[in-house]
Amino acid sequence: MAKAKTTNRGYNNRFERGMRVLKRMGRENLMLNQKALSPELYEMSVGHLFGDVWGRPGLSLRERQLVTLAANIAMARPTGNHSHYLSSMHLGITQREIIEVMIQVGHYTGWPTLSNAVRQFTEILEEKKEADRAKKLGRTFKSKLL
Amino acid sequence: MAKAKTTNRGYNNRFERGMRVLKRMGRENLMLNQKALSPELYEMSVGHLFGDVWGRPGLSLRERQLVTLAANIAMARPTGNHSHYLSSMHLGITQREIIEVMIQVGHYTGWPTLSNAVRQFTEILEEKKEADRAKKLGRTFKSKLL
Amino acid sequence: MAKAKTTNRGYNNRFERGMRVLKRMGRENLMLNQKALSPELYEMSVGHLFGDVWGRPGLSLRERQLVTLAANIAMARPTGNHSHYLSSMHLGITQREIIEVMIQVGHYTGWPTLSNAVRQFTEILEEKKEADRAKKLGRTFKSKLL
Amino acid sequence: MAKAKTTNRGYNNRFERGMRVLKRMGRENLMLNQKALSPELYEMSVGHLFGDVWGRPGLSLRERQLVTLAANIAMARPTGNHSHYLSSMHLGITQREIIEVMIQVGHYTGWPTLSNAVRQFTEILEEKKEADRAKKLGRTFKSKLL
Amino acid sequence: MAKAKTTNRGYNNRFERGMRVLKRMGRENLMLNQKALSPELYEMSVGHLFGDVWGRPGLSLRERQLVTLAANIAMARPTGNHSHYLSSMHLGITQREIIEVMIQVGHYTGWPTLSNAVRQFTEILEEKKEADRAKKLGRTFKSKLL
Amino acid sequence: MAKAKTTNRGYNNRFERGMRVLKRMGRENLMLNQKALSPELYEMSVGHLFGDVWGRPGLSLRERQLVTLAANIAMARPTGNHSHYLSSMHLGITQREIIEVMIQVGHYTGWPTLSNAVRQFTEILEEKKEADRAKKLGRTFKSKLL
Repeated sequence: MAKAKTTNRGYNNRFERGMRVLKRMGRENLMLNQKALSPELYEMSVGHLFGDVWGRPGLSLRERQLVTLAANIAMARPTGNHSHYLSSMHLGITQREIIEVMIQVGHYTGWPTLSNAVRQFTEILEEKKEADRAKKLGRTFKSKLL
Repeated sequence: MAKAKTTNRGYNNRFERGMRVLKRMGRENLMLNQKALSPELYEMSVGHLFGDVWGRPGLSLRERQLVTLAANIAMARPTGNHSHYLSSMHLGITQREIIEVMIQVGHYTGWPTLSNAVRQFTEILEEKKEADRAKKLGRTFKSKLL
Repeated sequence: MAKAKTTNRGYNNRFERGMRVLKRMGRENLMLNQKALSPELYEMSVGHLFGDVWGRPGLSLRERQLVTLAANIAMARPTGNHSHYLSSMHLGITQREIIEVMIQVGHYTGWPTLSNAVRQFTEILEEKKEADRAKKLGRTFKSKLL
Repeated sequence: MAKAKTTNRGYNNRFERGMRVLKRMGRENLMLNQKALSPELYEMSVGHLFGDVWGRPGLSLRERQLVTLAANIAMARPTGNHSHYLSSMHLGITQREIIEVMIQVGHYTGWPTLSNAVRQFTEILEEKKEADRAKKLGRTFKSKLL
Repeated sequence: MAKAKTTNRGYNNRFERGMRVLKRMGRENLMLNQKALSPELYEMSVGHLFGDVWGRPGLSLRERQLVTLAANIAMARPTGNHSHYLSSMHLGITQREIIEVMIQVGHYTGWPTLSNAVRQFTEILEEKKEADRAKKLGRTFKSKLL
Repeated sequence: MAKAKTTNRGYNNRFERGMRVLKRMGRENLMLNQKALSPELYEMSVGHLFGDVWGRPGLSLRERQLVTLAANIAMARPTGNHSHYLSSMHLGITQREIIEVMIQVGHYTGWPTLSNAVRQFTEILEEKKEADRAKKLGRTFKSKLL
């Protein structure tokens, strides 16, 4: 029975499904260091994490993004959250809303997770400005944060 | 300037504002062990956390709840999240949506945070049934989880 | 290309593959609260976590178990690690080796993670004795820990 | 040179030194589940953690206790901190001061670590009352928390 | 009653109270990235965290700082603790005492939290030397760590 | 009895024993910032952590390394794990096996711990190439990661 359901949900094209979600989020060019180190890991990240998890119904993409931003702010890991500020904005979440998520989460996980989020968000906003400038001038730009 | 803003937002009645938020969330009878141990801490929890933080504009109460649920599932602490399943349901978040938050967050914080959330949510659903039964029979019910 | 690889690795029968891994580990009757709350989550746990991850080549099952035990001892979550002491023993990892993992990991994640692991392992050893006694007497036994 | 210093500090009697620290803290009857599961681990806990670490000069025992309480409240692990409320009180740290540590730390690690600490401290205060009653009545008392 | 107490403790001037605490700690020029991103968040950090929490009686400022240092070393977040080594020294906590806090906490939260603290403290000591040199030469110095 | 055992295991030469373990792992030139900041802490790291813990029987050095890598990937701290990728390779653990540890652990501690590990491992592989080039050219090389 479980097998039947699996077949119905089409695991064979999970990678394609994942790429479609990534494009909606403006993230299709990320995780390339995974691709370089281990193509199988990259496939799993695209196919399982984005295809099978982010692609699920039951919550809107906006809500999945808010919830993921919250979990990542909570964990305050050194890397891995910068890209979610970008995809949040790509999905139409405003800067004000992002700050509210920080304030809300920070009270559940500690003030330094809040100030770490401020720092990471500020870094990404500054890099975005640089990237936009580079684009206008027709120059390539390589992110140090993503 | 900051002072002026503070005065305008009326910190004097932050406790009342917090209690109003707590009532909207069905949480007005919680944190009583804080009240018993330290009335000042209880006042800070109601006034600052619920009055000044949860009471902020910029995100809907539903979104603040989703984001808080996410942060707490992420941290997988032994206590403190059970009540948020109840207030989520009180605010109209469906069981299906709660499970989607678990699945989404669990992929960012580890499978055991997902299975810990399943366990805590199952416990609260079972206790809710007991509480409802007790209520029908006119009996008092004391939660072991909250 | 990624798609071709996916097809070759046969995602369609990932659930069956997961159940085979679970049986080798003596875990085939676990995660039933997931099954009760959300059959889709249960399918994902069996199919993805055990089928696609635990079932990967590149490390022996013993090594995957040691590494998982280490990660879980590190995180010191309230639930979710008890079962891994049982599957470790099922896979032939000795009690002595389990204690060495605790000591080694505890120095990287703090003494209380070590003492928490001692407590959880002791609980599981005691419950295992009870379960064995019940079995001899032909009685059913329901775990409070798993 | 390091060797000479080691010899001078007398590692041979670290276990005895550890037991002396434990007695000053009223903790000499703890960690017995470690002793039961692995005598070597128990020896390491007494000799290294209490003898070589807690026994160091440079901070008072009161300050080491405050700092340890803070680290444990921060981590919000399911077990392992209850005993530190007792040893804090044994060392003369007042209930008021313990609550201030909770409030201070809770703002750096999240409100649920604060409410988890309230819960654990309340449990230990209640059990302490039971233990005192049992003592008066000449009955034995076995802690469920330590 | 809670309201009356609130009024008595004068929440209206919490921002000023927070700034006074920050000055005693030598931190009055920090959190400026918060101010730039969100003036309301900055106001909350000064008014609530420093005014209402750090400004509480019941523990000395030295003890609040030791306890905060401990919580932050425990969490080993990528940013947010550097400034606390500076304010510790500003408050008269010696380098030796800071190292003892690291050793004590590191045993409760893992050796890498200890070595991460060593790295962060070493970075701040080196930057402090640079800042002092710049000051002597009448040059401005911009911290990369704070 | 515990005392006798302590004497027999020869704590007096724990520092030498630690250095022998460090050499087998190719780590004898690490932790020098600890030595610079606090020689006693360095002695404790070499003597206790490597001499008394890593030097224990009961698990092979390869297994201790796998388990330590797992715990560190789990915790996703900003520093402290880079060196363990190097010592893993020094001990003969293959790049493929290291990636499998990441994938296995990442499912128990969250996708960002996996992607953080990918980033740190990639950084160390790139720095290793630079170091090898410098060596061929007879130039000195100073790591920015260790």
